[in-house]
Amino acid sequence: MMYSVELIVINKEGVRDPEGETLKRYVIDSTLPGKVLDARVGKIIIMKINASSKEEAEDLARRLAEQRRLYNPIVHKIRVRAERVEDSNN
Amino acid sequence: MMYSVELIVINKEGVRDPEGETLKRYVIDSTLPGKVLDARVGKIIIMKINASSKEEAEDLARRLAEQRRLYNPIVHKIRVRAERVEDSNN
Repeated sequence: MMYSVELIVINKEGVRDPEGETLKRYVIDSTLPGKVLDARVGKIIIMKINASSKEEAEDLARRLAEQRRLYNPIVHKIRVRAERVEDSNN
Repeated sequence: MMYSVELIVINKEGVRDPEGETLKRYVIDSTLPGKVLDARVGKIIIMKINASSKEEAEDLARRLAEQRRLYNPIVHKIRVRAERVEDSNN
């Protein structure tokens, strides 16, 4: 079965995120004053993975990220989320 | 109520994504041979937004992205996803 898997890499809570801070201060706050408490900018890798279950797809993505150092566990955290898709579409 | 809103910006289907292609060819395919059909790399902005409903939170993020050109609709598509959070955590 085919899964669309999102692997999100963002800075941990305790790590500053200058890109997000700048975006919030100079772009977001003037457009949505008072509505946005925090903004963080990160990277996302979206993969189409062939796996037998949602759990296996997420596990493959998580192990890939760890083995190939797609993130740095000292400063980043990851979120992994798989969702079933038809084989032909996104 | 507080929502954690993910705003994902990735290249459209018809637009090449050299970063994703390189990641797939030189990193993913050797680790998970035959399992990953496609990889795309994008940007994600995670915001904490104060809104009265999930729909309003998503709508605010979408309008922010459009008004302030956080993406280029010619080459990018966006996904917006809000989820209720407690006011104090992430």
